[in-house]
Parts: sequence; C-alpha cells; structure tokens
Amino acid sequence: MNRADGDEDGGDGESAELPEAKTPASKLGAATVGPDWTKVSCPCCVSQRVEPLVLVKLGEKVRPETKRWLIRVIGTPQKDGGAALLAHPGEDASGDIIVLSAPRCTLLKATEELGLCKTYHTEELEAFSYNDRDNFKNADNMEVFLTLAERQYIVKYELDGLRAQRDLRVPGLADNYTLQYRDNVYSVNEYFGSSVGFYFSFLDFYTWSLLPLAVLGLTITYFSGEAEKEMDESVSDSPDTSDEDSGLAVSGHIVQAVFSMLWSTVVMELWKRRSSSLSYRWGTMHLAERFAEPRPGFHGDLGVNPVTHRVEPLFSEWQRDLRMALVSVPVVGLFLGLVVLGMMCFYWGEAQVQQLHSDWDSLLSQALLYAPSVLHIAYANALSTVYRTVARSLTEYENHREESAYENHLTSKVLVFTFFNCFAVLFHIAFFKQDVPLLRKRLASLLIVTQLLNQVTEVVIPFLVDRFISAPHRTESEDDPQEDKFRNQSTLPVFPGLFAEYIELLVQFGYLSLFSCVFPLTAVLLLLNNLTEIRTDAYKICKLFRKPFSPPAASMRVWQVAFEILSFVSVVSNCWLLFLSPWLQKVCREGGLSGTNLLLLAVLVEHLLILVKLVMAVLIPDEPGWVRKKREHIEFTSMQALREQKLR
Amino acid sequence: MNRADGDEDGGDGESAELPEAKTPASKLGAATVGPDWTKVSCPCCVSQRVEPLVLVKLGEKVRPETKRWLIRVIGTPQKDGGAALLAHPGEDASGDIIVLSAPRCTLLKATEELGLCKTYHTEELEAFSYNDRDNFKNADNMEVFLTLAERQYIVKYELDGLRAQRDLRVPGLADNYTLQYRDNVYSVNEYFGSSVGFYFSFLDFYTWSLLPLAVLGLTITYFSGEAEKEMDESVSDSPDTSDEDSGLAVSGHIVQAVFSMLWSTVVMELWKRRSSSLSYRWGTMHLAERFAEPRPGFHGDLGVNPVTHRVEPLFSEWQRDLRMALVSVPVVGLFLGLVVLGMMCFYWGEAQVQQLHSDWDSLLSQALLYAPSVLHIAYANALSTVYRTVARSLTEYENHREESAYENHLTSKVLVFTFFNCFAVLFHIAFFKQDVPLLRKRLASLLIVTQLLNQVTEVVIPFLVDRFISAPHRTESEDDPQEDKFRNQSTLPVFPGLFAEYIELLVQFGYLSLFSCVFPLTAVLLLLNNLTEIRTDAYKICKLFRKPFSPPAASMRVWQVAFEILSFVSVVSNCWLLFLSPWLQKVCREGGLSGTNLLLLAVLVEHLLILVKLVMAVLIPDEPGWVRKKREHIEFTSMQALREQKLR
Repeated sequence: MNRADGDEDGGDGESAELPEAKTPASKLGAATVGPDWTKVSCPCCVSQRVEPLVLVKLGEKVRPETKRWLIRVIGTPQKDGGAALLAHPGEDASGDIIVLSAPRCTLLKATEELGLCKTYHTEELEAFSYNDRDNFKNADNMEVFLTLAERQYIVKYELDGLRAQRDLRVPGLADNYTLQYRDNVYSVNEYFGSSVGFYFSFLDFYTWSLLPLAVLGLTITYFSGEAEKEMDESVSDSPDTSDEDSGLAVSGHIVQAVFSMLWSTVVMELWKRRSSSLSYRWGTMHLAERFAEPRPGFHGDLGVNPVTHRVEPLFSEWQRDLRMALVSVPVVGLFLGLVVLGMMCFYWGEAQVQQLHSDWDSLLSQALLYAPSVLHIAYANALSTVYRTVARSLTEYENHREESAYENHLTSKVLVFTFFNCFAVLFHIAFFKQDVPLLRKRLASLLIVTQLLNQVTEVVIPFLVDRFISAPHRTESEDDPQEDKFRNQSTLPVFPGLFAEYIELLVQFGYLSLFSCVFPLTAVLLLLNNLTEIRTDAYKICKLFRKPFSPPAASMRVWQVAFEILSFVSVVSNCWLLFLSPWLQKVCREGGLSGTNLLLLAVLVEHLLILVKLVMAVLIPDEPGWVRKKREHIEFTSMQALREQKLR
Repeated sequence: MNRADGDEDGGDGESAELPEAKTPASKLGAATVGPDWTKVSCPCCVSQRVEPLVLVKLGEKVRPETKRWLIRVIGTPQKDGGAALLAHPGEDASGDIIVLSAPRCTLLKATEELGLCKTYHTEELEAFSYNDRDNFKNADNMEVFLTLAERQYIVKYELDGLRAQRDLRVPGLADNYTLQYRDNVYSVNEYFGSSVGFYFSFLDFYTWSLLPLAVLGLTITYFSGEAEKEMDESVSDSPDTSDEDSGLAVSGHIVQAVFSMLWSTVVMELWKRRSSSLSYRWGTMHLAERFAEPRPGFHGDLGVNPVTHRVEPLFSEWQRDLRMALVSVPVVGLFLGLVVLGMMCFYWGEAQVQQLHSDWDSLLSQALLYAPSVLHIAYANALSTVYRTVARSLTEYENHREESAYENHLTSKVLVFTFFNCFAVLFHIAFFKQDVPLLRKRLASLLIVTQLLNQVTEVVIPFLVDRFISAPHRTESEDDPQEDKFRNQSTLPVFPGLFAEYIELLVQFGYLSLFSCVFPLTAVLLLLNNLTEIRTDAYKICKLFRKPFSPPAASMRVWQVAFEILSFVSVVSNCWLLFLSPWLQKVCREGGLSGTNLLLLAVLVEHLLILVKLVMAVLIPDEPGWVRKKREHIEFTSMQALREQKLR
C-alpha cells in the first residue's frame, strides 16, 4: 500500500475528478486517468477532486476479476460490509495496483470513531461529532480539517476494518503495504502523525534538557583539573592511571550524580506536562480506541461487548493473563537467562584463552584471544534476532484487543531484552567485579564508539545513499507518470518503526543516569550526539524509508514508563558506585568511619534521594493547569450531554 | 440541625399533610401539628405525606419575624435564590426550631448534581439524570430511591448552598446543627451514608485479613517454643532475659516479617478492588463534586469557571499552592520540630532526674523521677490540641474549592502529626538507640495498654453511660411529643468524625507492619481487639452521638494512601530491625560474613522486597473486571451522548 500525497503544488497534478462531477477541463496525471474512481455512495461527498491517499499493491497473481471484486468491496458502504472508500484501478483494470482515497463522510465518521478532538466554532478543541460536523471549523475541507497523516491512517484503518470483518483472503493484500514518501514536511505531526510527532518532540526536549547537565559536567571536569586526564584515561588502556582518584574529582562526581538524579525526575515530569499539552493540541487526548472495533489480528468467540453492546469477537481477560503468566513470562525469562549464560560463557572463554595464550604464547593462541568476543557477538546477535520473532508471536498469542495494547506489550518485551543485553556487562562490572575504573573505561569507549557508529550509519551512509542512489533515481522519475512515481517510491525499504530510535535514546539515558557519577562528560557527549541525531533522524524518516502509517497517539506510552523507571533505578546504581569509590572509602577510613557506617550512609542517602524524587514527582502536576481545565470542561460537557440525552 | 428519621413504624406518626392535599383523617404527631409545612412550588411534588428529615435549632434570640423570613427563604425555589426545601415551624411560630424536608424534585435534582448513580429500568446502575427520571426505578418513591443518609445530606447540601450563595447572617443557624439518632440501623451505608460505610467495610475487611497473619504468628511463636517466654519478656521488666535471642525465634521472625510485608500489599490491593465495587454498588463512582457549587467556606473573586462556564467565586491554583508551600508546610514542619524537641527534652530530663536520684536518693528525688514523663505527656497533649486548631485554620486559609479537598488536606495534616507523635519514640529506639529488646517491650506494652484502654473507653464507659444516663432518659421520652424527642436527642454530643477511628486503625497497622519482625503476636492481639472494635464503634455511632451528615464518598481517599505508604515504609523498617537482630549478627560473624556484607544483604533483600511489592501492586488490578466493564460502559454512553447532543 502506498501513500500518495496529494498536497503537492496545490495538488492539481494528482487530483482526479469524479464522473458525477463532470468538470470540463481536467489536468489529470497518468496515474488517475484511465478507468474512473468508484462512485461515492452519499451525495454530500461528491467533490470536484479526489485526493489519492494510499496505493495498494496487489500480489503478482491477482487476476483482473479479483481486482474488480476488490474495488467493488472497497467502495461498498460500511453498513453493507464494505470500507466506504474510493478506489481507482490505476493505469488499467489489469494493473497490480489500486489507488485509494476516502470520501468526506468516511473521513469524518472515522474521526469521530477514533475520538480525535478538532476545533469547534468557538475556537475550542472539542471531541469531534459527526452529527455536529457543521459546527466544526473547516469540516468541509478535508485537507485542512485532517492532517495528511490522519487522512492516510484513516484509509488504512478502514481497510483493516474490512479485513477484520470479513477476513478477506485476497492474495497480496495483506503483505504488500508499501508507502510513498514525499519530502515536503510541513510539520512532523501534520505529515507523519502524532506517534512520530511525539518522538521528535521528546528528542528535542530531552536534548535541550541535557544542557544544564553538560554545563555542570564541563565545569566540574574543568575545576577538578581533571579534564585532560579524564579523556586520557577513558581513551587510553592503561589501568594504572585510572586507578588514581583524586578527592576533588570524586566530590565533583558526587555533586554531578545528585544533580543528575534530581534532574532526571524534573525532566520526566516536565516532559509529561509537555506531552499532555501536545496531545491536547493534536486532538488526541480523548482517543476512543477501546470503544472502537478490535484490531485486525484479534480473534475470539463472537459475543456482545459488555461496554459498547456491539457484537464482536470477545476474549476473556483472565485467559490473556493466563497466557502471559504461563507462556510469555517464562519464555522472556528464558531468553534473559540465555543472555546471562552467554555472558558467563564469554567470561569463561576469555579466561581460558588468556590462560592458553600465557601457556603457549604463539600466533595461533593470539588469534584465539579474539575468539570469545567474536563468538559472543555472533551469539548475542543471533539471540536478539530469534528473540524478536519470538516476542512478536508471543504478543500475537496474547491476543490483545487494541492495537496500542499490542504495541505496548511487544515493545515492553523487546525493550527488557535489549536493555538487559546492553547493560548486563556494565552491571556485572559495577556490581560483581566492583571495578569502577574498568566501568569508566568501558562507558567512555561505549559512548565514543556508539557516537562514531551513529555518525557513520546515520549521517554518512544516508548521505551517500541519497547522493548516489536515490538522487539520480529521483530526477529521473520527475517527469514520469504519477503511478510510476508511486512504484518507484515503493522500492524504498519499509520504515522499521520508532523502536530503534527510542531504544537508542533509552540506552543513552541509561548511560547518563545509571553511571553519571563515574563519567561526568556523558551529558556533553550525548548533547553533541543528539544535536546531529535530530537532523539525521528527520532525514532518515523523510528520505530513506517509505512514509509509515502512524496511528494517533496520546503519549509516548510504554517509553515514558521505561524512562521513569530508569530514573529511579539510577539512584540505586549511583549510590552504590559512589560507595565503591576508592577515594571515598579511603577518606572514610581515615576519618574513622567504618565500612559498615559508610554503607549505612550510602543507603540513607539513597532512601532520601528516592523520597525526594517521589515527592517531586507527586508535587509537579502531570498536566499544565490550562490543559486540566480544558480536559475537565470536555468531561463536564460529556456528563451534561449524558443527562440531557436521557430526556429523549 | 436535627435529623428526624421519618421511617419508623410506617412513618405515619411523623407524617404531615400538605394543605393542598386535604386528606380528611390525619394522625399527626405534636411536632408537626400547628402551622403548616410550606407549600411546594412545583405541582409534581405535592404528596400526601412529608417526611421530616432535618431539624434546625435556632439561636435563643431569634425573633418570630426572622423565623418567618427564614422559612420563606428556605421554601423559595432555587432560581429565586432559595433552597427549595419544605419547612415546618414546629409547635408554633415563635418556637426555636424549624423542621425541614425536601420535595421530590429538589431531591432528584440534587441527586443529579452530586453525580450519584441509580438503578435504571434496565437494572443497570447509571448516572442519574433528572430529565430521564421516569426511566429510573423507584424514582417516584423517595424513601426507596435515596437512602435516608442521602436524603438528609441533600437537605444539608441545599442549606449550605443557600448560605454560600447569600451569606445569610441569621444568628444561630450556622452553629446549632444538632442531629437526632434513631437506633434502627438497616445497613450502615443506607443509614449513615457512604463515608461511614467505607469505614466499617474497611474495618471488617482488615480485621478478617489479619487472620492468616495471626495464625502464622501463633504457629511461629508456638514452634519456636517461645510462646511463654515471649509474653513474659514483653510484660516483665527485666532487660536481661529479653537480651537472649534464640536462633529459631529469629528465623521465625524473618518468615513472619517477609510474609507480613507481602501480605500488606496484597491486602491493600484487594481492599482497593473491594472499595471500587462498593463505590459502584453505592452509586458514588461518578461523583461530580468538582462540577458542583464550591463549598460554603470557599471565597474568591467572582468570575466564570473555565470548566462549567458558571459564574462563581474563583481562586487560582498557584495562589493556593503558594499558600501551602509558604505557610502550611513551614508551620507543620515547626510543629513536627516541636514534637522532636519535646522528646529530646524528655530524654534529657529523664537523665537529669536519674542522676539527681542517684545523688540524693531521697523521697523527693524519687517523686521527681515521674516529673519528666508527666511533663512530656502534658506537653504532648497541649501541642496536639493547639495543632488541631492550627491545622484547621491553615486548611481554611488554603481555600479549597471542594469539600473533599478540604477534608483531604486537613486529614493529611493531622495524620502526619499524630503519626509522628505516636511513632517518634519507637523510631528513636529502633534507629538511634538500636535497642531491639527495649523496642519489643515498648511495643508489647503499647499494644496491651492500648487494648485495655480501648476496651474501657469503648465498651465499658459507653455501656455505663447507656445504662445509667441515656436509658432512663430514653424511656421517659417515649411518650413525649416528637419535637421534644428531637430536642432530647440533640443533647447528645456532636459526632467527632471518623478521624479518631481511622487513626487508631492506622497506628495499629503501623505497629503491625513496621515492627512485625520484633513481636509476632501483634496480629493476634490486633485481631482480638478489632473484633470487639467493630461492635463498639457501631454502638458508639448509633447510640452515643448525634447522627452525622455524611457526604457521598467514592473511597477512603487519603487514608487509603496513608495505609499504602506505611506498607512500603514497613519494608525499610523490618529489614533494618532484622539487620540489628543480635542473633543474626552473631551467626553471620560465625559464618565469616562481615558486618558490611550482612548490611549489603539486608539492603539487597529490602530492594528485592520493594520490587516484588511494586510488581504485585501493578499486577493486581485496582478494580474487579466487572466494575471496570460497567465503568467503561458509562464512559462510552457519555461519550456517545456528547456526540448525539451536538446534533441539536
């Protein structure tokens, strides 16, 4: 399925006329000439021009009669089991594409169904109501009323509904969603939808909030006169220099750690406020997903939904819980165990080859020194690939009703694993080996290597690809018929979702908060990295992948929770690392403080910090006052409406 | 103001006829003869009999013309600034009472305004809507439709609204609320309203949930062969015997402590489920307090409420926050400081008199030994009394809009102080003196003394009062006119609120969970205590106090939070106490585990337990599936209503 963005150059190049409209002069692109758009079933939707929104690519072996049948079903009104969309067979009836658009009524009804808020004639955002459409601003001009991302998502939503309802077995329809990108990004939310919008807003917010931490880190490193040494230590491999810890540096580290622990709570709370005001502005605050149709993959015995009183597949809560408890949790646990096993084997192998090398001291044994690392990397990659497939089928098996619940559970599963994979070694060094200098070295090299890799994979390669592969290709297709453009764009790889971007941020945030007292320059490095990251991510999503369908979202959902959990775990880890600090231990011994008392002090500080963080999290309201008032007003109106409706 | 319960003996003894009704035979009690009930303004409310609900006692100096004016205002419809209630001047126009009732329409409109849910004709509970009243079951019979507690609360609510609106300065009206009790308790919620209902449900639930803990405590005490010794230790005053800790007992204590820590989370989660199903059944799930008129004490500049768009006094959020941060928090902190100061002075004085006694060894010095304790008790009591007054004015100054917010803030303030007062000494012993045997002795004596005091104050004294003071008084008034009965009942003391009952439970719960590993028989003693507590509390509220007006409530509110916080703090305290256990320290030293490592172990166990408790709290849903479905259905209906309403 391709998105065909019809809002370029006034859109006339791509607009198509409905046969009923019968305007004389039409400047139709090749894509929309040929057989006509299907007729709209309701008279109010008859319009001068049809905006192609999505392109469905059919399987190779679809015969023309199947295609004709498909087009008919797509155009059938919803009450008769269709999708109430507009379909256009492309060049000719036998081609393997269908261009889709949506009539006004379908768009408006779906807007209501999704629970989006739109501007009322009073200039306030209100939950959209189809019956009251005339009182909403711009409700007659779909290209202003809905964002492009919303219009395209609605087409996909209706198609999914068709599949869910009828379980259509049309070859090729299910697997060949292909997206078309266009590089005129008006605003991220406008074009890519709110889930991508949230990612970029968060990236931006988070990057700028690194600034105070970076300044502090630089100041501390400079004033403790350690700036140069710090960098030397982290890059050089000599363990002897890094063993020396000066008092000034450590007390600087303590300040840095306490500041960054409190900082992380403030940042997450402020982000929550920002996130809620974004979701209000984007009209996604009152999403009604749980009252809508279940997601396509959902199955169960037909029954009456106790909430909406509609007939639909039902699947009991306890059965899902049982599946999660008896299948998903053990399987995920098993994989986490395999990670640990891999790590242990790696350490064991490392010791073995070291032993072997010191015994033999030959070229072979020197080559063997790399074997454990290579094997471990291969093992970790293989495990990770297998795990992703397993996580997907586990989540499918859990049979979630809502798309967002499915996404949340899948994300959580992969997230836990990835995080474990990234941090197992660091935690092992910090908590079992208790080797702070090694941890610092590891961390610095991870940060620097990660950054270099990022720069290469996210700036250089995309630039090369764009320069030498996409660009000629693009100029070449500039004059091509619209349909060919679609086809060409559909050769771009599928957008892999925001998971990789978010996990990158989360792992960064982990380095920053969990081990902030070990390496104060983390924030500086991350700030530099993220400033380029914003640009490269935007470049990537605009240029290198097909435009994704993004469902409306009200928040970062599970990612928000992951960041908050990390921010609390960081207190435990920082207090522990400070306790391990050799300098602090020496000072305490000299000051007559026993090891037990120092530990007690560390525990006390930890509890205090957690308490302070909890109090801050409770005291800072999760939404700004003005959003709360708007939200309560909507609730009040809906309560009143319920009372008044009872009258009839 | 007296409540006059009109549902005794079919109610005909107290029923009064409206002049419009003109039924011939009337068996009116003396209280309702004389001048008539005011006329109802709407024709649908004309009814054969009027149920007297509340009795207002006027000040001594109210003149008949003031009373007549008052009766007129009370009877005026709301749109003209009245309370739309029915008033009856009692015996004659010059008497100092007014008997109040509410016509059907006033009751129904207030039911909608409060957001109560009632049974719809479909047998489902739905938010009541005045316009749709005919579709609700029993909406024509107020005595079945609303509970007695609700009817009486609504009369008070309308009167308060009158006061708030006009700020009436009628002498005697504000301060002379007096309540009348009647001993036919149908069900606690029915008669006393949901806030009292929640207290008794929780007491019942909590008491029975003590059972497994009590059984475990008994088993452990029995099997460690310590049962007798334990009791001896706790009662006897010899510090030498209690210093010996047997290994079996300590490992038993560990089991007990871990079990009780997990138990407390499970109990609180199960209670939340029960609480939500109760609030659904009682129809208080969707209370609309924040959309209703502000509480009478609320003041501010007139403006348009951004949520309801009604003109009412407004007071900005940040101003309230500022008052809380700059006035309330420092003042509360000051009082907590005074508690600590008092405790320190007590310890200092104690040391001084001990010194003095060992120096002088005279009768005077022996008498002086009691001086610090006596002074400390007097100081603590005085402080507590002053604090309550201060807390009330602070909360008044914070100017909360909703009654529930006012209650929550007041309760939190007094709660923190009382809790601090009760536990400061115990925490001092546990964390500074680190003296486990002393803690155990103190705890046992507290538990036993508290129980004995409870039995005396809550069973014996009430029984004596009832037998020798109330009972003769009551038989005497059996044949009296109704009005005199009201007057006699109004001599009963005002119900002091549930604060004392809740704080008693919370302190109990504190003893139980914070120090459970020290004294395993706590649960047994508390179980015995609470079984009598249920009866005595019920007796007290029914017989010894005026019936309170209780606003509808959806949960235990701030108490719920207090219990949950305690349940988490208990992990910290128990792990610390176990670490202090002399036997454990000895065993570890013998096993080659250093003090630091033992502490590390304790910290690890603490973090693990907190993690497990958090996970359990997240995994156990806060409301049963059926309540969730009902709630979502109501939300769905209201969302749909909003859409349909837009049509008009």
